[in-house]
Amino acid sequence: MAFRFDLLQTDGNARHGRLHTSHGIVETPVFMAVGTQATVKGLTPQQLESIGVEILLGNTYHLTLRPGDELIAELGGLHRFMGWQRPILTDSGGYQIYSLAASRNIDDRAAVFRSHIDGALLELSPERAVTIQENLGADIAMCLDECPPSDTAPEYWREAVRRTIHWARRCKEAHTRPDQALFAIVQGGTNLDLRAECARALVELDFPGYALGGFSVGETAEQMVTAPEPAAAMLPSDRPRYLMGVGRPQDILAAIARGIDMFDCVLPTRNGRNAMAFTSQGTLRLRNACYKRDQAPLESDCACTTCRHFSRAYLHHLFMADEMLGPTLLSLHNLAYYVRLLGEARQAIREGRFADFCTLSLARLARKFYD
Amino acid sequence: MAFRFDLLQTDGNARHGRLHTSHGIVETPVFMAVGTQATVKGLTPQQLESIGVEILLGNTYHLTLRPGDELIAELGGLHRFMGWQRPILTDSGGYQIYSLAASRNIDDRAAVFRSHIDGALLELSPERAVTIQENLGADIAMCLDECPPSDTAPEYWREAVRRTIHWARRCKEAHTRPDQALFAIVQGGTNLDLRAECARALVELDFPGYALGGFSVGETAEQMVTAPEPAAAMLPSDRPRYLMGVGRPQDILAAIARGIDMFDCVLPTRNGRNAMAFTSQGTLRLRNACYKRDQAPLESDCACTTCRHFSRAYLHHLFMADEMLGPTLLSLHNLAYYVRLLGEARQAIREGRFADFCTLSLARLARKFYD
Repeated sequence: MAFRFDLLQTDGNARHGRLHTSHGIVETPVFMAVGTQATVKGLTPQQLESIGVEILLGNTYHLTLRPGDELIAELGGLHRFMGWQRPILTDSGGYQIYSLAASRNIDDRAAVFRSHIDGALLELSPERAVTIQENLGADIAMCLDECPPSDTAPEYWREAVRRTIHWARRCKEAHTRPDQALFAIVQGGTNLDLRAECARALVELDFPGYALGGFSVGETAEQMVTAPEPAAAMLPSDRPRYLMGVGRPQDILAAIARGIDMFDCVLPTRNGRNAMAFTSQGTLRLRNACYKRDQAPLESDCACTTCRHFSRAYLHHLFMADEMLGPTLLSLHNLAYYVRLLGEARQAIREGRFADFCTLSLARLARKFYD
Repeated sequence: MAFRFDLLQTDGNARHGRLHTSHGIVETPVFMAVGTQATVKGLTPQQLESIGVEILLGNTYHLTLRPGDELIAELGGLHRFMGWQRPILTDSGGYQIYSLAASRNIDDRAAVFRSHIDGALLELSPERAVTIQENLGADIAMCLDECPPSDTAPEYWREAVRRTIHWARRCKEAHTRPDQALFAIVQGGTNLDLRAECARALVELDFPGYALGGFSVGETAEQMVTAPEPAAAMLPSDRPRYLMGVGRPQDILAAIARGIDMFDCVLPTRNGRNAMAFTSQGTLRLRNACYKRDQAPLESDCACTTCRHFSRAYLHHLFMADEMLGPTLLSLHNLAYYVRLLGEARQAIREGRFADFCTLSLARLARKFYD
């Protein structure tokens, strides 16, 4: 089926909507769990479903290197390959243009990478990025963009925005799958004129959704909180808005308040693997000795497997004993926390009390205990 | 409730029975999944239940060092601590007298270890081994025994057997929990006279179950297959017989044929973490390139989560990409395979066709493909 976005309700700038995709409906605002290499690290799709994860993110750069997008296509696509039947969004590899800057060259034709696995050359043109994502079969694909670091010189920012627009046009021309939506990515850093120029050009190309790229790439916390608002306002209200790579619970709440609909971030799983738990009262570091005899669950009102069956004392033990179940159980809880937070945000928007919800949640999150 | 063993049926020397424990009934012959540090590595209790695991093994030495048996008692016992409500057997630390021989001293009073974690001294007397296991609250506890390596000089074997009997008597005297069964361990290596002497002395002490120790400690494959038979025959038929640390599927089948009821082994989980899958047709090494495009599940007739949802190609990818889900999914399948194998063995005994089942299974297992 064709992609569609219904904007159902607004509350201030906060929005509640619905993405209709080939693999089902996703309510927004939504957090997408990161499954870089065709797996959310340590968790089965069944575990993800049990906590209500609605949509995953896969990674073009990683999957084309290993196991290969053509192999995944041959095996029936990414959904079937990884055993996940709900929606998937794939990024374009644009983030690796930023994160792997030391091992790639870029010009208008393409970004050329040295594989981090075996040093082989990978040429990622806009057309190739689209082909890979069509092979993977994501419900939502992203245009290839150039994402410079936040401290890039102004003249280079201009160049990156020009290239991002040029590439978006080529991606749209190359894109063929009617069951897949192709989103464009607005760049421009913290320069609002440049963002506006980029947004205007991309909106003119008429994409079914837009992302704000270039956040969480070294800017200050203040910039990250304030910049999305005018950037979001430049985008058509009837299209979903995706703030890439953000972030902490407080950043997500602030961005929802500024009109963002979609999020992804490695924090819940990466921090989970490193013994940090997210809760509505702030974070817990499970290796701390204070949890050694703590019989409470991570959160008493959390319905995830981790909280229903295990105490903080047990989780503390698993991390102290280097047991792999620790990272698994904490990743599961952290994702459950993010899913719950976004569900509560949607509910608050539906009930016209998002501002209050946001204020209360932020106050609670600021109350860190034990660490 | 008090422990009880019902011998329901025999087929040649093979036996089918039922263990009644404080945490439920276990059908024998049974394979016990190894959960050394209060976790079966990488798997939740829910996942273990989903594949029909009936009973787990915990480890006295590891758990008393970390997190501590008194702490576990304070937190409600091992079942509650690790979220596992079915039966648990704990070993006594006797195996570490063998495996950590380089960092311990032993005399009649106790074995004294240097902790592998922080070098602290741990004194494990028979009385302490019982107290630890009572603190852990296992349904079945084991007497502390001395397990020398298979190449030990005959005169030391005699000494180890004498000490094992002496310690079993002290364990029985120290043991107080009526809801916990204390099993004795027969030592004596491959010297049948010595085994018989040990068995006679222990049977005289009247334990509710007996283990055969000192297997899988360096003897030849032939010795491991043949030695349990006369040793099992020395034990009373109305008590369960547990062959400790064994083993491969073929070893287990051979031992069931020789009258053994209970098994434990790290192979399904350890090999699972190292990309080796057990199947009824032999083993698969999932890192092999031949699985790259193999859309089949590990076993088409296996009902575990891994086989129901994922292809060999996907498992191959997970191991090539060093993703933690690979070890988790393969451990789950391997345990499911062991559970299924033992279930089929019980069924065959009930139907009086164990010898045929055994012959057919061993022939299939010998047919290794791809590696």
